[in-house]
Amino acid sequence: MIATLQNIRVVLVNTSHPGNIGSTARAMKNMGLSDLVLVDPIEYPSVKATAMSAGADDVLASSRIVSTLETAVEDCELVVGTSARHRYLDWPLVTPREMTGIVLPVAERAGKVALVFGREASGLTNQELECCQYHVHIPTNPEYSSLNLSQAVQVLTYELRQTVTSGDMNLPETEGKVYPTAHELKLFHESLEWLLLTTGFIGKRASDALLRRFHRLFQRARIEQEEYHLLMGVMRRLKVLLEGNQKGS
Amino acid sequence: MIATLQNIRVVLVNTSHPGNIGSTARAMKNMGLSDLVLVDPIEYPSVKATAMSAGADDVLASSRIVSTLETAVEDCELVVGTSARHRYLDWPLVTPREMTGIVLPVAERAGKVALVFGREASGLTNQELECCQYHVHIPTNPEYSSLNLSQAVQVLTYELRQTVTSGDMNLPETEGKVYPTAHELKLFHESLEWLLLTTGFIGKRASDALLRRFHRLFQRARIEQEEYHLLMGVMRRLKVLLEGNQKGS
Repeated sequence: MIATLQNIRVVLVNTSHPGNIGSTARAMKNMGLSDLVLVDPIEYPSVKATAMSAGADDVLASSRIVSTLETAVEDCELVVGTSARHRYLDWPLVTPREMTGIVLPVAERAGKVALVFGREASGLTNQELECCQYHVHIPTNPEYSSLNLSQAVQVLTYELRQTVTSGDMNLPETEGKVYPTAHELKLFHESLEWLLLTTGFIGKRASDALLRRFHRLFQRARIEQEEYHLLMGVMRRLKVLLEGNQKGS
Repeated sequence: MIATLQNIRVVLVNTSHPGNIGSTARAMKNMGLSDLVLVDPIEYPSVKATAMSAGADDVLASSRIVSTLETAVEDCELVVGTSARHRYLDWPLVTPREMTGIVLPVAERAGKVALVFGREASGLTNQELECCQYHVHIPTNPEYSSLNLSQAVQVLTYELRQTVTSGDMNLPETEGKVYPTAHELKLFHESLEWLLLTTGFIGKRASDALLRRFHRLFQRARIEQEEYHLLMGVMRRLKVLLEGNQKGS
């Protein structure tokens, strides 16, 4: 058992076909992963899932079902979404091989990482993609680009295992760095929204697009743990001052 | 369409589950391959195959069914078999990434290459593995190593496409080299058998093991086209001489 791979979670969002959940469990176990979280699956548990899992029913048995992606990734320091096409030009889009260099340094020092896979027909929503620091795209035939869900899981987990076992971890610049969890990032984004509203930078209406641009900016920046604490410290100070001012005015 | 990938054939031997044939067609098309040959499939055609192929039913429609592996690969210059475990210690065993460096130089100059996948439960027989110049093994969790058939196809075709599109072809030593087809190699091995029998080096009985050792030796050597013609020239000369001698004696 390779400990690094145990820190990498596979999250399936709103899966339609239970057979794909079973095939995913098998693909994960083949590559040494075991942490599976299902966000609001359409049909599960199911005998079809168990049948397709072959000998990987232990992965199914230990999987968790949650109702939102946010809950599925709340303890994760890094969230990587899979994207069939490139929706956001300003979001970091990486190949599966590049993804290993981003994911493994975090997983190696026991930080939790989530790989998020969307619906069979429609992938991840824009809102779900925005929960992710990176998007990974498997390069395919442009005339026929949509991989079966469990095939996409197989390709990414295969790449992760190959890199772990070859000891060839690229992108050393992220080594040793610690990042806030998705829950902490959410707290930061809430603070940011509060700040933008409170300062009148955005109004209650039509604020969404602008707020998302800020959100993206900070996701791209890949805030580290220490920076997070600094930013939140600033936010708390602002809160006291601004709310104090409001009371005083 | 990437021409190099069109020269790479996927051969499925004696597949039990038609769903796997469909999933294989989809996995191939996702990566830009289209040449599928089925050796003696258990249940095919089948609605299950068509369902699992999703939009890749054109790959199924153009696939061929043959009765032996020999026929499936007879026009191929290079035959690579997939092996779940390492049966022959003296056979070249490569990783999927190493495989791309062996396969792509041949396919790039329009030589046909076959990737051969065995039965779901038992893989390829020893005899079938001996039809191959190389064996490729996908490194997996040693406690749970057997990938679903179409997942194995996905991993290998993914690796091929990544290497083609990145233009990063390693193992340049095989570039520009031309190799005999599987049919020609078979003719050579028949000549070899004839030679060993005729010279009394092997008898009719118990000859199999020794013959296979020769077979393996020449497979490992990876005879080039020119060398093949030289060897066959020698064989023809020997035939005239030895059969002439027999007649004369």
